[in-house]
Amino acid sequence: MTIPVNPDRFLKDLHDLRRFGASGVGKGVVRPAYSEADIAARDWLAGRMKAADLSVQVDPMGSVFGLCEGPSLLLGSHSDSQPEGGWLDGALGVIAALEVARAAREAGGPPVSCVSFQDEEGRFGVTTGSAAWSGALARDRLDSLVDPQGVTLPQARAAMGDRLGDWLDPARFTGFLEMHIEQGPVMDTSGEAVGVVEAIVGIRDMVITFEGQQNHAGTTPMALRKDAFQALSAFNALLNDRLRNVVTPATVWTIGHVTLLPNAHSIVPGKVKFSMQWRDGDAGRLDRMEAIIRETAQEVAATRGLEMSTGPMLGIAPVAMDAGFRAALSEAAEAEVPGRWRVMPSGALHDASNMARMMPAAMVFVPSIGGISHDFAEDTDEADLVTGLKVLAGAVTRIAG
Amino acid sequence: MTIPVNPDRFLKDLHDLRRFGASGVGKGVVRPAYSEADIAARDWLAGRMKAADLSVQVDPMGSVFGLCEGPSLLLGSHSDSQPEGGWLDGALGVIAALEVARAAREAGGPPVSCVSFQDEEGRFGVTTGSAAWSGALARDRLDSLVDPQGVTLPQARAAMGDRLGDWLDPARFTGFLEMHIEQGPVMDTSGEAVGVVEAIVGIRDMVITFEGQQNHAGTTPMALRKDAFQALSAFNALLNDRLRNVVTPATVWTIGHVTLLPNAHSIVPGKVKFSMQWRDGDAGRLDRMEAIIRETAQEVAATRGLEMSTGPMLGIAPVAMDAGFRAALSEAAEAEVPGRWRVMPSGALHDASNMARMMPAAMVFVPSIGGISHDFAEDTDEADLVTGLKVLAGAVTRIAG
Repeated sequence: MTIPVNPDRFLKDLHDLRRFGASGVGKGVVRPAYSEADIAARDWLAGRMKAADLSVQVDPMGSVFGLCEGPSLLLGSHSDSQPEGGWLDGALGVIAALEVARAAREAGGPPVSCVSFQDEEGRFGVTTGSAAWSGALARDRLDSLVDPQGVTLPQARAAMGDRLGDWLDPARFTGFLEMHIEQGPVMDTSGEAVGVVEAIVGIRDMVITFEGQQNHAGTTPMALRKDAFQALSAFNALLNDRLRNVVTPATVWTIGHVTLLPNAHSIVPGKVKFSMQWRDGDAGRLDRMEAIIRETAQEVAATRGLEMSTGPMLGIAPVAMDAGFRAALSEAAEAEVPGRWRVMPSGALHDASNMARMMPAAMVFVPSIGGISHDFAEDTDEADLVTGLKVLAGAVTRIAG
Repeated sequence: MTIPVNPDRFLKDLHDLRRFGASGVGKGVVRPAYSEADIAARDWLAGRMKAADLSVQVDPMGSVFGLCEGPSLLLGSHSDSQPEGGWLDGALGVIAALEVARAAREAGGPPVSCVSFQDEEGRFGVTTGSAAWSGALARDRLDSLVDPQGVTLPQARAAMGDRLGDWLDPARFTGFLEMHIEQGPVMDTSGEAVGVVEAIVGIRDMVITFEGQQNHAGTTPMALRKDAFQALSAFNALLNDRLRNVVTPATVWTIGHVTLLPNAHSIVPGKVKFSMQWRDGDAGRLDRMEAIIRETAQEVAATRGLEMSTGPMLGIAPVAMDAGFRAALSEAAEAEVPGRWRVMPSGALHDASNMARMMPAAMVFVPSIGGISHDFAEDTDEADLVTGLKVLAGAVTRIAG
């Protein structure tokens, strides 16, 4: 059966949610996890769930569930925002989930529950709420988490008071679907309306240090220098060449942080520390890239007479989305916008990464105008929002209908 | 006539001067301009000048002159140090000047005066004492100079109290000679003992900014990025290639300061500001390099879709050393260490730059072990120090003897 979602009601709820923490700049919101605005938004959301005849339960992290009886699909995302965030980000997936659960309930099935996870934006970690529920983040570590301002998680969580309840049994859910904005420019550039996520990419990230010789920039001839910036530049150029044989158009790699020492106009830099981060949906490709990165850094250091060292490696494994759910999303997308959708990786982490540890999970993307996200200027055409809602509902029908 | 310099007396005075501000680490000294140690050193120096039957005069900046009657050559350098400096730097040139002036006076000629300039190391500017005397730094600006801690020059100068006297008439001097350590690795690498400076290099320095687009490092495909760090790296590689056709082995260029924005692992850098500094003894070459730098930056920005802008240009013109004085130094060097000396540029600024505005001026270098300077580890073999002293005396004989 088709789930009779109501686009107007969906858009009204989405705009209503935006009022909590509205920044006053464009459609921006300031609604970080456990802030007054975040908790008020969760209270409002719980009210909307109840109004839809869903049973509200809040877990120990503050993730808010709207439950139907018995086994069900779970749909959702997160309603907390970046310290300066956009109005859609996770909020879109929360309200889309609410609308699908509500419409399904009104229509007498299929059974759909919805959720807004807490702290996906990582005030206390990375996708903290869903990570704690799934076990990706050990629950005995929760009390020791501290935000960048020195507030502990227990202190922040106390603001939610007696709203907090017990952990839910994941076995009551038959799978998880998350709708989200792309947060990148791919579909906005191609003119497509829907992206079916094939995998959430893995991330590897390490700090590389080149240490040469700090010298006077006037009295040290070029041939006698061991210039750490020049080593970085040579490494970057060689690496870009060498990676071309290994990567796909979806692979990304970034040098986003550079600290040069002593960082003065008249001193040949003796040391540089920089971040090297790379992302891909395939673990084997991440391995091959890592080997090239390490070899190239060693080669550049040896050739130029510098020391090279690497810091600890952050590794997050790629997460493949469930094949059956992907097929359901693809069929629904083709039915809704024939030829105007694509299969794509998610370059960013999402709650679905954690859900995939416990149950079949998949994601659907709608375009981000200009690829902008985590910014007050974040936006998506309302037509695309509604298309995404319909694809989500269509996939639920195909999976559980 | 030969000036009968006394190497033991010269070395003893040099070691005695080191006691003022001795750092306790190796031979390091902490004797910045107008510090207690600096003023005590100047008092000691004035005493040594008087003991050598030279008449002491201190100018309004605190530069200490030891004068003989009538027209004379002026020899000297500076006795202030970097906040953490070596024992030789300017002190070597001051004590060598004292020894040559003293020995010449004892021998009945030629007439030689000596000087220790104040604040060559630039607590209040660049070669502040000699710049103020020569007019390179306008004297009506002196009272507005402030050090990095917010102390004004009048406040600092007050510590010298009634030692301070009037400006000297530069017309009483027939020329200026400065002995200095090389502060670079060229002679230490080549095994030579003496460097005759042909020119003090000119410096050009500007900040270049590339502004692209800050983006999420996971969701922004490589092909759609406008990555400011990548632009910097590409600029650097192209520039190194293009400059090879223009430069000499003595030309240097340096990217010593890099500020990347926002400088985060997971964000494609949207902006980079970096210093571009280049030095050469030939103004025409500095011009050609500037044209290549500007063209390359514009080309890289245009090719990659970034904005490029440049800050104000710092320009210090090259200063050629006096041809006659250079010839005298070269003859003296060849006599002292046949075949073990070279003609070379000075990559660093010195008081001689300012003196050349007022009178014929030249410089002679001795090696720096490991090229190290502005560091407690700065040192030179005593045999090289004595060789430098003899070359300086030999040049004075050839010029004025």
